[in-house]
Amino acid sequence: MKTPIGFIGLGLMGGPMARKLLQAGYPLVVWNRTAEKMKPLVAAGATPAGSPRELAERAEVIFTMVTDAPQVREVVLGEQGVGHGAKAGTVVIDTSSIAPSAAREIAEELARRRIHMLDAPVSGGPEGAARGTLSIMVGGEEEVFRAVLPILQVLGKSVRHVGPPGTGQLVKLCNQISCALNLLAVAEAFALARWAGADLAAVREVLLSGAAASWMLEHWAPKILSHDYQPGFTIANFQKDLRNALQEAAAGKVPLPGTALVHQLYRANEAAGESQESTVAIYKVLMRLAGEPA
Amino acid sequence: MKTPIGFIGLGLMGGPMARKLLQAGYPLVVWNRTAEKMKPLVAAGATPAGSPRELAERAEVIFTMVTDAPQVREVVLGEQGVGHGAKAGTVVIDTSSIAPSAAREIAEELARRRIHMLDAPVSGGPEGAARGTLSIMVGGEEEVFRAVLPILQVLGKSVRHVGPPGTGQLVKLCNQISCALNLLAVAEAFALARWAGADLAAVREVLLSGAAASWMLEHWAPKILSHDYQPGFTIANFQKDLRNALQEAAAGKVPLPGTALVHQLYRANEAAGESQESTVAIYKVLMRLAGEPA
Repeated sequence: MKTPIGFIGLGLMGGPMARKLLQAGYPLVVWNRTAEKMKPLVAAGATPAGSPRELAERAEVIFTMVTDAPQVREVVLGEQGVGHGAKAGTVVIDTSSIAPSAAREIAEELARRRIHMLDAPVSGGPEGAARGTLSIMVGGEEEVFRAVLPILQVLGKSVRHVGPPGTGQLVKLCNQISCALNLLAVAEAFALARWAGADLAAVREVLLSGAAASWMLEHWAPKILSHDYQPGFTIANFQKDLRNALQEAAAGKVPLPGTALVHQLYRANEAAGESQESTVAIYKVLMRLAGEPA
Repeated sequence: MKTPIGFIGLGLMGGPMARKLLQAGYPLVVWNRTAEKMKPLVAAGATPAGSPRELAERAEVIFTMVTDAPQVREVVLGEQGVGHGAKAGTVVIDTSSIAPSAAREIAEELARRRIHMLDAPVSGGPEGAARGTLSIMVGGEEEVFRAVLPILQVLGKSVRHVGPPGTGQLVKLCNQISCALNLLAVAEAFALARWAGADLAAVREVLLSGAAASWMLEHWAPKILSHDYQPGFTIANFQKDLRNALQEAAAGKVPLPGTALVHQLYRANEAAGESQESTVAIYKVLMRLAGEPA
């Protein structure tokens, strides 16, 4: 009999992740704030729960994939939260991206109730979730990590324990910083090439063959070429991560001038009502700055 | 009998490129301002010339790999330059990285003397030059490009004609913009991770497995881990490229805020006397800003 798993938060990422666990043969209990989103998973064999608390009574390992720290606190520590239903020894795996400090605080609260917590944010987008090829950065106790590793490996191609509670979130922020600047790299190269009348598809291919290559140039730059600004990953969520990165850096007095710049350029997307568009829409900001249509 | 080739400028890049052509069996005439640098190539079978003009009398295809536009002008158009010794139909291939506008002007001057010119800047560093795996972006007439393609393929793995005169240089600038911001991405991620006490080697591996991956993170970030700031590619040369990119962008009224920021951060390397260090030394600037030793 496989470990009974609970999954809270069935959105763009959580939906395909939960489905992956179900396909791997784990008994799955699900909960989502908007009940509607549970239906496809229930149709595929999952059991719906009436609350996170009720879900926790029926699972030994509980995933959360929600928007930000307040939502994690609510489903984990709230009145109808996991903390009130879970047996001692239950493992909560938060795959949301939240501030490292919040992750540490929630882990401490749960530890008092003898509930284990891992912060396990992911990278790879909905495609990676659907394929089970996410990159997962895990903070928390190493023996807890080892116990749930086979389950995490259903979801991720690269699953790595990186340190104590909060460290998974911290490394995720480093990941987002790099993604942000690699996206700006694509956008500025394309902005200059476009002005010069160069063929952007050819420029992309040449750059991919050398030292300018990046995952963003390979996988997401084509969205710019086809004017496709559907997420993927929304600017609203990216801004949350960049804000967390800058706050963490502020706490450490670490100046991050490039990250701050990208955060401000995305502010211009927000000003234009583009918060729900893909992060590649930073190119549209550069085009507007240059007085050109994107 | 293979086409006789001339090679002018036998530095960090030109040296290994010339050697590659010699190894491929091309008769090679060489010239370098500092005569000393000709010796290893002459020992390997090349013929030394007394001037670019003399070199041009003995070659049908002539490579130049020098510092910047003034040096290209001097060896190509100067009194003892290629232009005075070359027969009509000679092809000059400038692999230096110079401003697109300068490349166009030199090509026009040579065209009046019935000498063909290709701007063919490269990416891939001394390692790529030694292995013959450079990425080469070529601007100029397409039929001239086709005629010398087999020779360029001795030097490069990816050799691509991208448009009329100057376009090779323009695409190289796009390449450098992307490299610069991808390097800043590595430096800022490492700066935050280091403050948090994370293991930078582990952070690099995790980031490489996901959307934050880049050539810079894979190939050059290890230099930061081992505190190795030997070039590779010097900050002085990178600053020349970024300055050319910003000037080209200024001509087109294309705002490039990220490129401008990186250019200014490298200014801090210059202020610290680090112009001859590797471009990864931008990490040292971030460390100094954070009050830490690198």
